[in-house]
This record gives sequence, C-alpha cells and structure tokens, in this order.
Amino acid sequence: MQDVEEMTPLATPEGAVAEQPIFRDDEGELNQDFLAAVTDAIEASDSESLQKLVEDFHESDMGDLLEALEPDQRPRLIELLGSAFDFTALTEVDDAVREEILEELETETVAEGVRDLESDDAVTILESLDEDDKAEVLDKLPPMERVALQRSLDYPEDSAGRRMQTEFIAVPPFWTVGQTIDFMREGSDLPETFYEIFVIDPSGHLLGAVALDRLLRSKRPVTIQEIMNDAPDLVQATQDQEEVARLFERYNLVSAAVVDEERRLVGVMMVDDIVDVLEEEADADIKALGGVNSDEELSDDVFYTQRSRFPWLFANMCTALVAANVINMFQESLERMVALAILMPIVASMGGNAGTQTMTVAVRALATRELGRANAWRIIRREAAVGLLNGLVFATIMGTLAGTWFQSVELGFVIGLALISVLMFAALGGIFVPLTLNRLGVDPAVSSGPFVTSITDIVGFFSFLGIATAWFHL
Amino acid sequence: MQDVEEMTPLATPEGAVAEQPIFRDDEGELNQDFLAAVTDAIEASDSESLQKLVEDFHESDMGDLLEALEPDQRPRLIELLGSAFDFTALTEVDDAVREEILEELETETVAEGVRDLESDDAVTILESLDEDDKAEVLDKLPPMERVALQRSLDYPEDSAGRRMQTEFIAVPPFWTVGQTIDFMREGSDLPETFYEIFVIDPSGHLLGAVALDRLLRSKRPVTIQEIMNDAPDLVQATQDQEEVARLFERYNLVSAAVVDEERRLVGVMMVDDIVDVLEEEADADIKALGGVNSDEELSDDVFYTQRSRFPWLFANMCTALVAANVINMFQESLERMVALAILMPIVASMGGNAGTQTMTVAVRALATRELGRANAWRIIRREAAVGLLNGLVFATIMGTLAGTWFQSVELGFVIGLALISVLMFAALGGIFVPLTLNRLGVDPAVSSGPFVTSITDIVGFFSFLGIATAWFHL
Repeated sequence: MQDVEEMTPLATPEGAVAEQPIFRDDEGELNQDFLAAVTDAIEASDSESLQKLVEDFHESDMGDLLEALEPDQRPRLIELLGSAFDFTALTEVDDAVREEILEELETETVAEGVRDLESDDAVTILESLDEDDKAEVLDKLPPMERVALQRSLDYPEDSAGRRMQTEFIAVPPFWTVGQTIDFMREGSDLPETFYEIFVIDPSGHLLGAVALDRLLRSKRPVTIQEIMNDAPDLVQATQDQEEVARLFERYNLVSAAVVDEERRLVGVMMVDDIVDVLEEEADADIKALGGVNSDEELSDDVFYTQRSRFPWLFANMCTALVAANVINMFQESLERMVALAILMPIVASMGGNAGTQTMTVAVRALATRELGRANAWRIIRREAAVGLLNGLVFATIMGTLAGTWFQSVELGFVIGLALISVLMFAALGGIFVPLTLNRLGVDPAVSSGPFVTSITDIVGFFSFLGIATAWFHL
Repeated sequence: MQDVEEMTPLATPEGAVAEQPIFRDDEGELNQDFLAAVTDAIEASDSESLQKLVEDFHESDMGDLLEALEPDQRPRLIELLGSAFDFTALTEVDDAVREEILEELETETVAEGVRDLESDDAVTILESLDEDDKAEVLDKLPPMERVALQRSLDYPEDSAGRRMQTEFIAVPPFWTVGQTIDFMREGSDLPETFYEIFVIDPSGHLLGAVALDRLLRSKRPVTIQEIMNDAPDLVQATQDQEEVARLFERYNLVSAAVVDEERRLVGVMMVDDIVDVLEEEADADIKALGGVNSDEELSDDVFYTQRSRFPWLFANMCTALVAANVINMFQESLERMVALAILMPIVASMGGNAGTQTMTVAVRALATRELGRANAWRIIRREAAVGLLNGLVFATIMGTLAGTWFQSVELGFVIGLALISVLMFAALGGIFVPLTLNRLGVDPAVSSGPFVTSITDIVGFFSFLGIATAWFHL
C-alpha cells in the first residue's frame, strides 16, 4: 500500500523518492501520532493548531480524519476549524457519520458550509438532514441556489437528478469558438471542473455538446453548431443512478447531460459520482450475498447492527427448521445407523457450497447485465453439466473415503449417489433461483441466498437419508 | 432497464419520446430478430448487409454482439466486416472470448486492426495473444508504435504501465496559452480524448499539468508555467492498478500522469479504464466470497469451470470431514438421543450464517480501505457485542421451539447455550480471520470463507453435542 505516498508532490523532479505526507503511516492509514495531536488540539479547543495540522488536507483526507475520530469529537473539530472546514469532506464519510455530525451542528453553520459547495455535494448534505433542518438551511441560502437545490431534491432518491451537478456551461449554437472561449475567460461563475460545454436553444432545450478538446482544436471563427455533437450522451433526470452508471461504463463516458422530460438541460452527471455509484452498488451486492443489509455501515452501533442482521438469521433459522423436519422423518434410520448422522452434514455442506458458487456467478452476471435472455440457456446447460461433473468427481472421492471409514462399500455408494443428486440440484437451484427472482423484479442478490441454501440443505438431507433408508431397508 | 433508450439521439428536441435503437429490445438486450439477421448474413458471407446492420454500432454494442454470437461465427463476422470492424470492440468482451477470436484471426488482420487503436486498447489485445503471435503482430507495426507498445508490455501485469495510454500532449513550461492552443489546433496526431495537458522539461521529466478548463479560461499571453499545477496527480508505471483505482476514487480524478522511476512522463491513466478496474475488483471480491475463482468468466466452458471450482469444493469437503469427526466423537450420545442429530445442523447453520455476515462486512471494508488499524478494535468490540446479542435472542427463540418440539425444557436450555457460544465464536471468527489473513498479506476475500465456516461448523457441533452430553450425562 503505497497509494498516498505516490500522490505526494515531489520536491525535485529527478528521481526523488516520493515523500510520505506526515499524516499517513506506511500503510496509507492515518498516523496514530497525527491523530493524537488532532485529538489533543480538539480537547484544548485550540483552533489555530488544528488549522495548521490539516492545512494540506484534501477533502477525502478530512473525511478519513472525521471517521477516525470519536463521534463526539467530530462536530467539535468542524466548529473549531470554522470557515477553514470544507463541507465537501462530509460527502466523503459514511451516511451514518454524516447524519450524526449534522445533528450536532448549528443550522447556521450548516447553511454557511453548504453555500460554497457544488450543487451535487450540497444535495448529499441536505439529504442527510431531517425535514425541519433541511427547510431551515434552504431558507438561509440565496434564492437562486435555493431553487436549484430544491429542484434536485424534488427528484426521486437515487435518481440522476439527485446526483447531478447543476453548474454547467451552455451556449447558443450560433456562437463562435472565439466567443465561447472569451466568455469562459471572463466568466466568474463557472463550474469548478467541466469536460464539455452544452449547446441549448432559447428555451433551454439541449441541442448538442462540444468536448473541451474539440473546442481547443477548432479555430476561433468556427461556429459551435459546426463542431457540436448533435447526439450527445444524455440521461433523464428521473433515471436511476445505477442505470446511469451502467451507461457510463458501457460507453466510457466522463460526463453526460441530464435533461428533464421536455429535454431541457437541467444538469450534468460527472464520472467521479459514477465511480461512487458503482462502488455502492458492488458493496450492496457483496453485502446482500453475505446476508447483510446493503445499507449497513461500519459506523453503525451495536443495537442497529443486531437489528439489521436479525431478519437474515431468522430466515435461516426457519429454513434450518424445515431441514430438521426432513431429518426427523428419518429418525428411525438414524437410530439404527449412527453413521448417517455423522455423514449427513457433509452432503448438505457440499450442496450449499456448490449452490453458492453457481448463485454467485449468476447474481453478479445479472447485476452487470452480462447474463440475459440471449445466453441464459447456454449458462443453465453449462451449470448443470458442471454440477454433474463435480457430482461424479466428489461421489468417487467421498464414496471411497466414507466406505473406508465405516468399512462399508454400500455406505460409500449411498453417499456417492446422494452427492451426485445434491450437486445437480445445487447447480440448477443456483441458476434458476436468481433468474426467476430477477424475472419477478426482485433483486436476486438480496433474496437468492436463503432460497438456494435451503434447497440444498433439504435436498441434501432428504437424498442422503432417503437413499440410505431404501438401500439398507432401514 | 431503459438505458439504451435514453442514449438514443432524439429526432426533435421538444419532448419527443426517445427512440429505441433497432438492435436492442425493451430490456436493452440485443434484439433476437436483429441477431438472426446478423447470423443469416454471416452464413451467407454477405459483407455488405453486415456492414449496414452494424453501421451505427458503438464499440461496446459490437462487443455485446460478439458475445451473443456462437463462438465460430465471431471471427467470421470480423473477417466479413474487414476494415469496417473497429478492433476496440475486442476490448469490450470477456478475456476468454477475446483469446478465442484472436486465435482464429490471421496475424495480418490483427496487426492491421491494432495499428489504429489507442495504445491501452492495443495492449489489451496484444496481452491476449500467445508469445509467437504477439511478436509477429508487433513486427508488422510501424517502429514508433512498436516501441511504445513494447514498453507498456514490459511493465508487470495489472500495473498502471499496462493500462495507461501512451498518447498525451506535453509542452514546455515557457510556452504561452496561445502557443499551446495553436499547437493543438494544428496538431494532427493528438490523442482521441484528453482532459489535461502535461508540462515537461527537455528530458521528459514531469513538471506539472494544466486542466483543459483552466487552459480555456486563461488569456493567450499567459505562460503555461503560471497556470500549471506543479503538484499534479501522478502514479508510478509499476504501481498496481487496484491501488491506482483507489487513488482515483479517493481524490475524484479523471486522469493522472504515469511516470517511470525517474519521474519521466510515460503515459496517462484515464478514468474510464479505472471504472473497469473497480468493476473487475468488485467482481473478484464477490466471486471469491462465493467460492469461485476471480477469473472465472461466463464464457468459460464446462471443463474449465469444473476444474476451477473443484479446489473450493475440495477444501470444503476437507473441513466437512473434520466436522464429521467432531460428530463422531459423540457417537454414543447420538445413539442415545436422536433429537441431537435432528437439531445439530440448525446450530451449525446459524453459526455459519452469522460468521458469513461478519466476514462479509470485514472483507469488504478491508478491500475499500475502510477498516484499518485505527478502527479495528472498535469493530471487533461491535461484532462481539452483536454476536452476543443475537446469541441471546436466538437462544430464547430456538430454545423455546426445541423445548416444545421435543417436550424437554432441558433440551431447550442445551440448544440455547450452544447457540450463544456458536454465535459469539462466529462473530469473532468472522472478524479475526480476515484481519489476520490481511495482516499476513493473504487476500482475505479469497481465503476467509473456508476458515470461517469450518470454525463455525466445528464449534457448532462440538458445543451442542458437548453441552448435551455433559448435561444429560450421556
């Protein structure tokens, strides 16, 4: 981990070894000594030292610092830094941390901090306030900003409208390149960063876009109309951010116009926000597959975490009870042959693992849109064949082992047959369950796990104990 | 799914409903009729119709089409399209698909196709060739390009050097804004897209960077030196792409200079490649947690898939055998009390699920660098407390159920105690295993699963059967 190291400006251009910023240790984590110095300064209410300690901080370094501090020190730090604190840092911390901090701050301080932000960052912060505070903060903002933010907030949660930046450059098509460049040279209220300028008609409808490199390569007298791309990449403000992220990914976009239902330009989506969306989505899938709520965060407290994990464990308990009932059906067989009790968890766990493998591949491929109607049958056939093959392989291995262990060739055959059937079922369950849930409009990442493991448990116990009972006439 | 719909250029700017491209169906997948038309044209070797069918295609549409075709039709399509085929499309398909296609194509065709590509795309294709073909293709390229590509290929796999684009604009610091803009207007060999220009000294050392919007906003007589950022974002060519991706994510970068060990500018990393890296990485974590090799692809064949999944299942079989041996220790207890055999899988499966929950959160937080030394103890304490709480809750529920089912208050107590202990162990295993593996330099996503589930199985069976044996003097 030398990431931070590599980002540090080098003192001399020739081959100098990159210097570690003082606030990060070798592994790129915040330095314990540095953290102690910050904590001391907060306890001593020493704003001056604090401001000095964090003067070279990027907003995401500040975010890391906030998360590393104890909860009660976070708002204290912000108050002590005063206007030296860039509220953008609050967009770099977990939702739960942000909400906690904002609850402690004066509305006045929040309004002051939000005023200087890019609109997308301001929206992220406003979203974390409760309704009363949000209204109060909005009230304290200049009318123009208030209207723009209010409009973003009116779009549905997780839509492009919420994530877009409302600062952009739009010019009429008849302007020349020279006029446009002069306008940008004189403009004071330009967005902080931009990669394309937009072309609109007098009512604000999007006509096209010009990438900055295109603009730079064109001669001054050329009109914008001549160089504009009249089929620019665009998204609807109401479109879900995940869909927008897939578009950026598919077409390698860096920014895209956001339009309303009348195709009026209302904002611009930037790739750095898309990177965050993709990470959030991957996070949600990983957590869902592991039986954790997708909005669980590292900063959640014990009781919240316990409550959020309870339903998954409860669902698992219910399916485990069903499996126990299946075992119960074979009570007499178990009494007559205790080897069955010893071996049955092996069959169930092999099935569970094989099912999880197939399910993982299927869920991820559905999420990235790699699995669709065009190739579903091909994948189902492949999984069934893999299940059969692995069934045969493990039937041979496990059959031999169990036969030797319990000195019974017949028991070896029984566990072998059970493994073949459970691995086949696991493969089919692993692919059909996510496909079906997806077809029904249910997120397969969230719901496939319990279904697949209960199928494999039940099939595992039933086939092993059933085959054994039939074979040995128990 | 209306993603593609939204991307289509609209005929009229005012509120027209976006039109679906003919080659996509309502869900954004490739249209079956369209696919049939392409297949027919391939069978009939009808290049003209083919070229017409795909004339509006973006490279990633072409990638989707290639993946949707049967394997033997893919190289045929490319040959029939001839120079109308943009080889960039080959960077949009799975590695396995790309390798298969390239094996079938003439080296001449590949060399011709690679010549027109951006360097990073060319490298991706060259990486997929075997050594002989790679050398042959390189031989057929113009010397300048060959040297640049060879240099990229000399960097380690998955390093920034392999992913970077070697086309960039670099100017001396004493140039003026006007000179620079004129240079770009006249330049014919400029990169396809760029977001910043670089400033270098006569030996190619990186001095700074100027974002395009900054350049556009500056007056013509201003020198580059005055407006350049002399601490530009940079990465080392040998740096791992994952680290580079975390940097882009942390500092919201769109491009970054790539330098060699002497700080000479050798290329530029672009955010669209970073988006792919982040997706690959999330993919790898998801698959590893699900017990699947991270390089498994949807296009892999049955035998390859079976072989790649075998080790995980084999590892699981071994730990299941250890668990079976634990059960074997309590053979007599099981014979005397069959209820234990019926209930023991519930204890093990609750433990397995709780352990997986904690492990998933820990592994993901380690991957995104959210979990580190600063907060490890806080998280360990939280997980232990959550484990204890859920243990108490499920001990009560399951104890009552089991007590009622088997008409034995004592059995209820036994399973309750076993659940408390297994859920505590699961929580601790779920956090300590990934933390320890990470400290040892092993990827926790890949290896945590088997450890955690074997711990929970063994502890589950041992504590339930052990407590029962002691309690009932079995």
